[in-house]
Amino acid sequence: VNLILFERREVSDDGAVSVSDVRATHLLHVLRVVVGQSVRVGVVDGPLGVAVVHTTRPGAVELRCTFAATVPPPPPVDLLLALPRPKVMRRLWAQVAALGVGQIILTNAERVERNYFDTHVLTPECYRPLLIEGLQQVRDTHVPRVSIHRQLKVLLEDQIDELSGPGQRLIADPAATTTIGAAVRESGEARVLLAIGPEGGWSAFELGLFRAHRFRPVGMGERTLRTDTACVALLTLAHDAMWRR
Amino acid sequence: VNLILFERREVSDDGAVSVSDVRATHLLHVLRVVVGQSVRVGVVDGPLGVAVVHTTRPGAVELRCTFAATVPPPPPVDLLLALPRPKVMRRLWAQVAALGVGQIILTNAERVERNYFDTHVLTPECYRPLLIEGLQQVRDTHVPRVSIHRQLKVLLEDQIDELSGPGQRLIADPAATTTIGAAVRESGEARVLLAIGPEGGWSAFELGLFRAHRFRPVGMGERTLRTDTACVALLTLAHDAMWRR
Repeated sequence: VNLILFERREVSDDGAVSVSDVRATHLLHVLRVVVGQSVRVGVVDGPLGVAVVHTTRPGAVELRCTFAATVPPPPPVDLLLALPRPKVMRRLWAQVAALGVGQIILTNAERVERNYFDTHVLTPECYRPLLIEGLQQVRDTHVPRVSIHRQLKVLLEDQIDELSGPGQRLIADPAATTTIGAAVRESGEARVLLAIGPEGGWSAFELGLFRAHRFRPVGMGERTLRTDTACVALLTLAHDAMWRR
Repeated sequence: VNLILFERREVSDDGAVSVSDVRATHLLHVLRVVVGQSVRVGVVDGPLGVAVVHTTRPGAVELRCTFAATVPPPPPVDLLLALPRPKVMRRLWAQVAALGVGQIILTNAERVERNYFDTHVLTPECYRPLLIEGLQQVRDTHVPRVSIHRQLKVLLEDQIDELSGPGQRLIADPAATTTIGAAVRESGEARVLLAIGPEGGWSAFELGLFRAHRFRPVGMGERTLRTDTACVALLTLAHDAMWRR
């Protein structure tokens, strides 16, 4: 953890905050803070800052925070992902948040098993702490918005415009020859939404639906990676391309 | 699994091979092959090919293989990694093999715990099947060479030249401003060796050692990722850069 994140409601107007949960444990037993010491902090969806340790007692820490005047911009990349199996999804939350996405749109697909949707891994109680963990690792404050969709057709036909608005749309497709880098460089859009399919790939019907809704196929090289590796690799390439242009 | 890999000794001169292990289980119960059906195959560190199912019986499959005349080139990227904790290393084997590396050089460092070296995750019995799993996912035949080093200084001073030979050497360093892409484009070398540090980073002494042995620092962006995510992200960027130049 390279940053302690607070919810906005936890911080009083004068910057005072008390913690007595895992963050206190981390401050006391990993960082081993003493009174007067400074630590990096942030407010969820808000600014970064610095906090001075005001008091400590077993299991609890009081801090006084000073926050930056501006909020860092949200990551310019969004992810649309065919829901992987729960074990994989569980590992992805923190990694995706650490790589940086504005939102995570999870969807059903022909080659997604229906029972993947019945897991507690898709409850905010499970995923929000994992997203926060990822953000704390990389000193970001932007918690990705999460939405879960059981019908891809409804998502693409009725909901995607409102969810993601304008911006470039890309879909990872092993058959495509355009690279993410080339596609992003050709586009002047400020944001990119990247769709990644299930282990077995999208069906031809689904690929057609994506194309009909402005998703441009981009290649992933000759190697068809597992979903978890592919997510990290493709989000890395999307960020790199957005950053370099 | 998108490819069934055989060891060279398993394949007879006329291309016949019998399997009765997990590969047979996969052929029979996942791919549900029937006699006469073709499947993609490969020989470890050898060519790709196609096999026709010759006979099946419970738990065993006989195939007749035809292999390509040439062996695909090995990946142009090598990895030098400060040993992460066993749980993370266990997950990385297949991912790193899938991304493609010629070799994996694991090393100690000041911020690596000594007991990480005592794990069965570092035995070929554990890691070789995981490497093969990663290769089968992406249809590659090149098993990364693995070497394990308990002294970074000895590795860099006495062993690295013989292990990796010529080629560009890069070290991921949050403080560096050159990107992997820029460094690779400036170099005419056919291979790149990428060093990735422990969770806590390399020490100043270690960074000096790397610099003294031709490792050029390259940045990783503003986000300091966890080792597993960083490995996937940085190997992706290295491959992308080698491929694009």
